[in-house]
Amino acid sequence: MNFRTDLAIERREYREKETLDGVLSKQKNIDGVKLTTIEIINEKGEKLLSKPKGKYVTLETKSIAQGSDLFSAALGVLSDELKKLLPEKGTVLVAGLGNDDITPDALGPKVMSLLLATRHISSELAENLGLGSLRSVAGITPGVLGKTGIETVEIISGIVKKIKPCCVIAVDALASRNVGRLGTTVQMCDTGVSPGSGVGNRRKGINKETLGVPVIAIGVPTVVDAVTMAFDVFEKAGITLEEKVLMEKLREHKSMMVTPKEVDNLIDRAAHLIAMAINTALQPSLSVQDIMSIVG
Amino acid sequence: MNFRTDLAIERREYREKETLDGVLSKQKNIDGVKLTTIEIINEKGEKLLSKPKGKYVTLETKSIAQGSDLFSAALGVLSDELKKLLPEKGTVLVAGLGNDDITPDALGPKVMSLLLATRHISSELAENLGLGSLRSVAGITPGVLGKTGIETVEIISGIVKKIKPCCVIAVDALASRNVGRLGTTVQMCDTGVSPGSGVGNRRKGINKETLGVPVIAIGVPTVVDAVTMAFDVFEKAGITLEEKVLMEKLREHKSMMVTPKEVDNLIDRAAHLIAMAINTALQPSLSVQDIMSIVG
Amino acid sequence: MNFRTDLAIERREYREKETLDGVLSKQKNIDGVKLTTIEIINEKGEKLLSKPKGKYVTLETKSIAQGSDLFSAALGVLSDELKKLLPEKGTVLVAGLGNDDITPDALGPKVMSLLLATRHISSELAENLGLGSLRSVAGITPGVLGKTGIETVEIISGIVKKIKPCCVIAVDALASRNVGRLGTTVQMCDTGVSPGSGVGNRRKGINKETLGVPVIAIGVPTVVDAVTMAFDVFEKAGITLEEKVLMEKLREHKSMMVTPKEVDNLIDRAAHLIAMAINTALQPSLSVQDIMSIVG
Amino acid sequence: MNFRTDLAIERREYREKETLDGVLSKQKNIDGVKLTTIEIINEKGEKLLSKPKGKYVTLETKSIAQGSDLFSAALGVLSDELKKLLPEKGTVLVAGLGNDDITPDALGPKVMSLLLATRHISSELAENLGLGSLRSVAGITPGVLGKTGIETVEIISGIVKKIKPCCVIAVDALASRNVGRLGTTVQMCDTGVSPGSGVGNRRKGINKETLGVPVIAIGVPTVVDAVTMAFDVFEKAGITLEEKVLMEKLREHKSMMVTPKEVDNLIDRAAHLIAMAINTALQPSLSVQDIMSIVG
Repeated sequence: MNFRTDLAIERREYREKETLDGVLSKQKNIDGVKLTTIEIINEKGEKLLSKPKGKYVTLETKSIAQGSDLFSAALGVLSDELKKLLPEKGTVLVAGLGNDDITPDALGPKVMSLLLATRHISSELAENLGLGSLRSVAGITPGVLGKTGIETVEIISGIVKKIKPCCVIAVDALASRNVGRLGTTVQMCDTGVSPGSGVGNRRKGINKETLGVPVIAIGVPTVVDAVTMAFDVFEKAGITLEEKVLMEKLREHKSMMVTPKEVDNLIDRAAHLIAMAINTALQPSLSVQDIMSIVG
Repeated sequence: MNFRTDLAIERREYREKETLDGVLSKQKNIDGVKLTTIEIINEKGEKLLSKPKGKYVTLETKSIAQGSDLFSAALGVLSDELKKLLPEKGTVLVAGLGNDDITPDALGPKVMSLLLATRHISSELAENLGLGSLRSVAGITPGVLGKTGIETVEIISGIVKKIKPCCVIAVDALASRNVGRLGTTVQMCDTGVSPGSGVGNRRKGINKETLGVPVIAIGVPTVVDAVTMAFDVFEKAGITLEEKVLMEKLREHKSMMVTPKEVDNLIDRAAHLIAMAINTALQPSLSVQDIMSIVG
Repeated sequence: MNFRTDLAIERREYREKETLDGVLSKQKNIDGVKLTTIEIINEKGEKLLSKPKGKYVTLETKSIAQGSDLFSAALGVLSDELKKLLPEKGTVLVAGLGNDDITPDALGPKVMSLLLATRHISSELAENLGLGSLRSVAGITPGVLGKTGIETVEIISGIVKKIKPCCVIAVDALASRNVGRLGTTVQMCDTGVSPGSGVGNRRKGINKETLGVPVIAIGVPTVVDAVTMAFDVFEKAGITLEEKVLMEKLREHKSMMVTPKEVDNLIDRAAHLIAMAINTALQPSLSVQDIMSIVG
Repeated sequence: MNFRTDLAIERREYREKETLDGVLSKQKNIDGVKLTTIEIINEKGEKLLSKPKGKYVTLETKSIAQGSDLFSAALGVLSDELKKLLPEKGTVLVAGLGNDDITPDALGPKVMSLLLATRHISSELAENLGLGSLRSVAGITPGVLGKTGIETVEIISGIVKKIKPCCVIAVDALASRNVGRLGTTVQMCDTGVSPGSGVGNRRKGINKETLGVPVIAIGVPTVVDAVTMAFDVFEKAGITLEEKVLMEKLREHKSMMVTPKEVDNLIDRAAHLIAMAINTALQPSLSVQDIMSIVG
């Protein structure tokens, strides 16, 4: 598999003709949104899809960027699926991973700017503001190793020890194999963020082992690696080349990425979708409109 | 004292005709930069200046925004004074306090974007890159309580426990009493950040007691409180009004701030000055130019 | 009158006890929005209010920033009032005045980023896109004299000659006298932009004389001049000081402005309100939602 | 030629083994900067390189992003070459083409934010400010058709008629064929901007015919078209495919672009280089430092 992808669904598709031992998948359609759930149940499945054991929920919609009706449907489905993964009670810590200075990697920080943080609002104050009973939510934008000198997992882990959340939601921009998926797919999983994944290539995993609490990861593919795209077009053209030969030719492409021309826009809309899905999943008593008038 | 200021020098000036018990001050001029050191040595002094015991170094320069020669002088003086306050060895954690979304409060986050973080660079790699021996530096932009739900001190404290720095440098935008000081003064102290100080009004102190390691605070005044300005102009006009009466009239002014028209520019330049002072104080083997070509 | 304001309503209030010859005003309340129309009908009126002859419509709402219901009401009223001032047919040129780099002066440029420009869309294409019949709209962000070296009126006039619009809508941030008006008032008039008005102090008028076509100006006060605020608080305190004496004391305040702490947010919301009022007034066949999915 | 490029040098390279009738080229090395001048002298040359008759100066440097020494050298060479193309006297209008909201297309607008505009500064004032005698410079950021509804050439032409410059300098982000050229090449030519060139694909030419004055275009390649990259890697791999077949497979790639991961940074540095080259070429009496302290 000469390509890089953070999407379980793309790894599954790659082997679509095979029956995969240790991998369960099912699909349904809700309000025009295609929902695929892939479950990796044992080590065989882990090996086959190069992903840790767990549940991967993928939501596909024509485009996050299009039409308000479709957007509402996607938001509803995403919020509902997220609720299923969340513990019922306790403070939730949301972490917006990625680099604010690199447009396609800024998904996580953008989501944070729209998060409704509530941990500091006393229940008394919330009642007085007419917000009713709020679930405790905290948020952090840890930045990236190259700018902080601190591994993302170290920062989050330090805060987890302080505020003891029941779980962490980690938001990150993803890499896909297929340009058609950019900005049209959301992946959510209960296995956290794997080392080497994300646009910025995290060095260490952000998961239950490293943090001590469950980690739900949510992401949207925003880039395709240029080398991956090259391999992909060769494959589509039915051409097999020796990998070593090709890699030599593609040396200059290694630091390149493929993005849609309207990537700035796409990131804004994807961030809006994910932030609102998180906010509504965590505060079921508030409407989208209520939340927007507070955070927006 | 009907005014709000984070500057020890302004509190001192307010009582300039008095001899203050427990307060030592001295002044000198270096390369056209006025340097004032105020030391508060006991509780009497603490009370008189409403500031904790410690050393407050104030650097005044015609304008951070003006002329490159003046800028170089200010940078040299600031870097030298900072070195005197820093422990000789050990990892330094720099924290950029404040709210990125409010221009005059964004000083801390802007400084972080220019910080040379090195903690993740192995000494081997540093040698290979021709950077010689680097001091270990980490950085964090903790955000603000209203957006994270977490007290700034909690975030920093969580990270301090993880990475065990020898000290913390906290950068924050300050409020002054006098509009003439906006963007023309830098204050540095060894007492950390006091509760209620900064543009964004931190709720809890960020200091040796709360973090367990020494905290050096560096700031530049970027706003005057509108109510403070009103009191100040009354005082300048020699008018004394009953405070209660005036506060009633100034109710709408409470959420207002006074800034220079070119505040966006001023913040950029102040951030550049402080970041470079920190970078050069921590990496004496690198030139400003070397550092700029890495971070800029 | 020792204060600077761009609002006809504030000049009127200043003389509220007098009957003003040449000035007609009326007020009404629509859906919780206070609407004041001031008409200056002759030179006497011009002198009394220091504003050119014409119609000044002022909309006051608790806060542009608050609650979505209030926002919808304000949008409806503003759009309706704008329609009354617009010629029925012909291309409309919208100009977003001001300086993008100075937060409270960026209202005009921000509105432009949300404008639905249609002049380049052929009627055929519009039909195919399901947009029906569109009115021709063009937009320009002329920048500021200090950065372009060209007077704003020269730029707009050059484009007016090229595209021959039936009228120009000029959007600009305004200065008010009263901090309570910041972000809570919209002024719309059929007399264009006066020299010396706006946050950035235009040097030349932008109006029918200078452009050859009617100019509708729309603005929101985003700053109070610091010197104006000082005069204002003195007046509120019932104190009269000799102007010369006071001006001497306020020398440093001349380059200062007073803004709400949340000015960045306020500008975003005000820009949204004005842009949507313009878009809906010009394209009555499209809904706010339709327009947002195109421009947003 | 199944690829899109705005660089004359890449069209020349494509036919490097041929002797081209109507195309002259020469190369030299100045201070480590490779300088190639291609002259298209007749219609045969125009056809061969798909570019209008004129002079194309290409500057290649390891990376605009690297090292300050290299940067100074590139700046000097670029400024000198630009001087050769400029009329000796008269107002110069600089136009920053492109879309501020699309990172790799924002080169032009970014250059404008660093332009030293002087047309509005009287010679008296310039003397008083110690700036000596300044050449008259004006600047405009026309925006893009999709947002203004006005063709870029219409806006510039309207202003040209108003201020009658001796020439226009048009700055625009370019597309190259080769990822290795992104951010490492500057092209300058005396033929203006061709229709369909630039990242944003201008619809009409911006040149002497359309504006009535000479147009110097300066640009830096910031993207490779994803389809072009695909063709390019096929070619490098020695594979020939039927174009129709391939285009079908690459349908989804049509709205994709390839950029370096650090494109935000690259744009900032390229904008700095070009702006300073323009500023120093136009104001030979001022140093880079002087100019930076005014515009920066």
